[in-house]
Amino acid sequence: MFEMCDFPADIILHNNNKIVFVVLDGLGGLPLSKDGQTEMETAKTPNLDKLVAENVCGCFDPLLPGITPGSGPAHLTLFGYDALKLPIGRGLLEALGIDFKITPSDVCIRVNFCTLDKDGKITDRRAGRISSEENQRVLGMVRDKIKPPKGIQIFLETVSEHRALMVLRSDQLDDNVADTDPQALGVPPLEAKTHSGQSSRTTKIVNGLIGQTREILRDVDSPANFVLLRGFAKMQKMPSFQEKWGCKAGAVAGYPMYRGLARLVGMEVVAGPTEPKELARAAAKHLPDFDFLFVHFKYTDKKGEDGDFAGKVAQIEAFDAAVPDFVALNPSTLVITADHSTPAKLAMHSWHPVPVVIASELVRPDDVHSFGERAMAHGGLGRQLMINLMPLVLAHAGRLTKFGA
Amino acid sequence: MFEMCDFPADIILHNNNKIVFVVLDGLGGLPLSKDGQTEMETAKTPNLDKLVAENVCGCFDPLLPGITPGSGPAHLTLFGYDALKLPIGRGLLEALGIDFKITPSDVCIRVNFCTLDKDGKITDRRAGRISSEENQRVLGMVRDKIKPPKGIQIFLETVSEHRALMVLRSDQLDDNVADTDPQALGVPPLEAKTHSGQSSRTTKIVNGLIGQTREILRDVDSPANFVLLRGFAKMQKMPSFQEKWGCKAGAVAGYPMYRGLARLVGMEVVAGPTEPKELARAAAKHLPDFDFLFVHFKYTDKKGEDGDFAGKVAQIEAFDAAVPDFVALNPSTLVITADHSTPAKLAMHSWHPVPVVIASELVRPDDVHSFGERAMAHGGLGRQLMINLMPLVLAHAGRLTKFGA
Repeated sequence: MFEMCDFPADIILHNNNKIVFVVLDGLGGLPLSKDGQTEMETAKTPNLDKLVAENVCGCFDPLLPGITPGSGPAHLTLFGYDALKLPIGRGLLEALGIDFKITPSDVCIRVNFCTLDKDGKITDRRAGRISSEENQRVLGMVRDKIKPPKGIQIFLETVSEHRALMVLRSDQLDDNVADTDPQALGVPPLEAKTHSGQSSRTTKIVNGLIGQTREILRDVDSPANFVLLRGFAKMQKMPSFQEKWGCKAGAVAGYPMYRGLARLVGMEVVAGPTEPKELARAAAKHLPDFDFLFVHFKYTDKKGEDGDFAGKVAQIEAFDAAVPDFVALNPSTLVITADHSTPAKLAMHSWHPVPVVIASELVRPDDVHSFGERAMAHGGLGRQLMINLMPLVLAHAGRLTKFGA
Repeated sequence: MFEMCDFPADIILHNNNKIVFVVLDGLGGLPLSKDGQTEMETAKTPNLDKLVAENVCGCFDPLLPGITPGSGPAHLTLFGYDALKLPIGRGLLEALGIDFKITPSDVCIRVNFCTLDKDGKITDRRAGRISSEENQRVLGMVRDKIKPPKGIQIFLETVSEHRALMVLRSDQLDDNVADTDPQALGVPPLEAKTHSGQSSRTTKIVNGLIGQTREILRDVDSPANFVLLRGFAKMQKMPSFQEKWGCKAGAVAGYPMYRGLARLVGMEVVAGPTEPKELARAAAKHLPDFDFLFVHFKYTDKKGEDGDFAGKVAQIEAFDAAVPDFVALNPSTLVITADHSTPAKLAMHSWHPVPVVIASELVRPDDVHSFGERAMAHGGLGRQLMINLMPLVLAHAGRLTKFGA
């Protein structure tokens, strides 16, 4: 079982001090030209500027300097898990991405519809990127007819286009199964085997299901006439957020991936709005029930991924307008940070460090007065690894006691 | 085999983005009096100031805060190896220092000429610090007459004064041999033994060679009438720079130690000028053949070691004049940094952190505008460990992809 190796668990206190932990997805950015301003620096953010001026801030590396994280590892790190040692398999990520309620006995599998010719050889590994509707239709046929072996439950869920999720649920399954996708055309799909090339109970079950699927789709009127299976993955065994940090944790998140990631660490997902004011309202409603409330705002990342600099600026400003509502919750500690940078200039995630502000009665204030990457790089928290954030947050909330005497 | 434990190797991309990595040896300094300026701060460096102003900088600790590195560990860390876990034995360092072409089957040994009295007891552990010419003369006598056992090659090379290098080459040797130098006068040299005091094939061979040397030098007309052997060392098994970082790497370095260190990690040493403009010219010539070009400038360290503050300032200014030539190479990423500080005030290496500037289209600019330790301590890269530099450099060169999804 994974544990953050150096953290002394016995210093965690249990009390009623509340933490509101707001993630502005992909917040960090870059100027479009080197002499320009970033999205954060461009945005007019009087409320965030005030929060920064009165509290302590810094710039944190999501994983390690230079490493660009996906959403999964980035959030696990925010939650205080060492994500580099805790890889999330593709099947699991697919399940999280559609907010499928995973249990520890599930094997999650990414399914790609593909096209086979009459000789059973692959002609298109993505079945011509069929529509999500076509995916639902064909997957429905499989779901209706497939008969899992006794003691095994099977779940089949459309993701989008040619992508789907298969989940096998039974206490005796393992995820040591290699992909059946040969990553090549003109050859037949592979049989399921273990990574060491052996057969096993799970691979036999998978091959049985693949065989049934072949029969069910033999005469289907669709380019999606077979499936390739990838990324067999069970949940990592890891302590829940509550076990790890002594906080009963809830999540307010509208997007499935983040709801899934919150559930992965045992948070209760209580609401799913997406607009800043709605997020604050949901936080106000549910904060009484939790010690720690994770609030996820997606649109900063979305505009960054779109390469829409002005749109990202506007979303930062829209969030700024809701900041007084979060401050009004009056938690012991309010954190505003990001999972990673998504500069509109790059239209994708990047490795650049992300701004963090910790607001609490217990901060040692610094002399930073504006909510921007360059300014916050001079903050009192300095530049450090994101894995350090959770202990800092707990400390500022009075939820850690002295180590040693 | 050593690996930087946490770096996920599968995120490394292979593309044509070039990196020019310039090391100004011993660049970091100190003011001569506390209210003064450092060498860097004193030097007029308009080109470096511009590079800093347009890009991102920081101050990095070579190994760990407070630890002064030798050239070997400092360069290994620059190249992204965890030098604290990768000790370079003294014999190996001696071989690197004279640019001896080491192979993995070599045992490298530091040889000190010493003086024995007629009873075979040591009267001078350094043979009166004989001249290098005398060393060559006496070592030549040994080289001419010594007969290594079958299957063993022996190399004997003068280093300087009383210092020499012995290399034994054979597939079946080990370096588990303790020093024969008793570190005391009035006693005879030690026999070769393993560190656990056992004999072994290698120690037997070494004792045979020591015996032959005693006979050869029995009647020599020189204070150098015997040898003490120290620091038996083979190459560490470690991944090459190319295996580790996915970059075909070349080196432009005029001084033997740095040529040797570059070769140790598998870089191809392509040129050996020493003057800044010549270094830039060599870089221009050879950059097309490599992904990563290490360029080493020695004189900043040399003047620091000499305690020559004004001389070091002049060398920094001389390098500054060549900066436009490096910028004109237009690599994806240009790095200018140092292996360690060598303040003229101390006339030796020190632990003080070293300036780093990363120039790339992908930097998040900071608000530092001058090339000096004090200014660059406020850079956007912050203060961090030098082991982080290589991942940051690869990221800025677009040679790393996302970790996880």
